[in-house]
Amino acid sequence: MIEEIIGYLAGIFIMISFIPQVIKSYKTKNVSDISLGLIVATLIGTVFWIIYGVLIESMPIIIVNIIFGITVLYQLYLKIKYDK
Amino acid sequence: MIEEIIGYLAGIFIMISFIPQVIKSYKTKNVSDISLGLIVATLIGTVFWIIYGVLIESMPIIIVNIIFGITVLYQLYLKIKYDK
Repeated sequence: MIEEIIGYLAGIFIMISFIPQVIKSYKTKNVSDISLGLIVATLIGTVFWIIYGVLIESMPIIIVNIIFGITVLYQLYLKIKYDK
Repeated sequence: MIEEIIGYLAGIFIMISFIPQVIKSYKTKNVSDISLGLIVATLIGTVFWIIYGVLIESMPIIIVNIIFGITVLYQLYLKIKYDK
């Protein structure tokens, strides 16, 4: 029970983590200090997380990682669009 | 078996994701485009992940998140040090 709550808290914080970054990049249009490697490695990891969630049939893992993946994908778009 | 491999791949990519960011920030000393919110939310999530790993007694989750947490913590230090 307590494990489940802590697990959900971990998932929620990771899930929302890229939201302030996306907002900042969208507003400032400055992305040069952000590493493309960070974004790409995170995206690849997230795809493996989604596959893992499908294989073990865990809806929370799938949903959390799809939401997270969308924000990271949008960050990749902003990085490519605004990078000098 | 295949789930385990995919789970490890997911963990490895997330674990190494902040390494290129840390290298970039260390080299360029430019961190203003990086959101403090991203770093802090990721750190909090990682702490919950470590607690979760301890509660369910999963050594891989603990180790992966400690290594990841160290890189994110170092990124926080670089962000505070070089932020204008």
